[in-house]
Amino acid sequence: MPSETSEATLIPLPRFADARGSLTVAEYAHQLPFVPRRVFFVYGVPRASMRGEHAHKACHQAIVCASGSMKVEVESLAGTRQFTLDSPESLLYLPPMVWAAQHGYTEGTISIVLASDPYDPDDYIRDHGEWRALIRS
Amino acid sequence: MPSETSEATLIPLPRFADARGSLTVAEYAHQLPFVPRRVFFVYGVPRASMRGEHAHKACHQAIVCASGSMKVEVESLAGTRQFTLDSPESLLYLPPMVWAAQHGYTEGTISIVLASDPYDPDDYIRDHGEWRALIRS
Repeated sequence: MPSETSEATLIPLPRFADARGSLTVAEYAHQLPFVPRRVFFVYGVPRASMRGEHAHKACHQAIVCASGSMKVEVESLAGTRQFTLDSPESLLYLPPMVWAAQHGYTEGTISIVLASDPYDPDDYIRDHGEWRALIRS
Repeated sequence: MPSETSEATLIPLPRFADARGSLTVAEYAHQLPFVPRRVFFVYGVPRASMRGEHAHKACHQAIVCASGSMKVEVESLAGTRQFTLDSPESLLYLPPMVWAAQHGYTEGTISIVLASDPYDPDDYIRDHGEWRALIRS
């Protein structure tokens, strides 16, 4: 299990392959640091689109790129990192209070986002200046 | 939220679309009748493959076909039904003790399976005769 962290972390998923195909798995308390009460599927994203551009106050998220390829820019007190997601063989864990933006989606990309909490518009911080002030306080 | 059922149920997922792409969502207690403690991703399945062919004693599962197309044969006391999954806009809920088999995968199909419980080999019933005896008892 990934140790407690306030940084985005790329977590490899175990892969089981045989003549019937491949399977990767994310299980709570092993690869997945939280139990997802909400799952969403993102698709049909135009290549020039920028998604995300917010932080969550309390919600933990994890992104898997099931098909295609995408980039995730993550910003925290430690600085900015870019992750490329292009297979169901890893999961990008985003703890609360990291700023994230997704872009560079290739055609046909499908991503799955696991979220620890039900949808709550009050959990979003959409103003980058407000977010910076909060993480520095 | 889908009512308590012992039958496989196709559950439509709300879809939110804008210029940045489409998003569908499955949230616990609404579209998702259980909290998934395990998520797995199935891909690279040859067209002639048959997957599944078992029932679970206690584990609830839900399948979303994120890309491509697949068929799921489900058998219960009520008889046999076939579902075609071909978009992230619906989720097939499989309660415990239904017999399910997946086949007819088109090239590039990616499916996501949400499972209520950690992996437990003892939760599987792989013998169809044993399963029939159990559901009739």
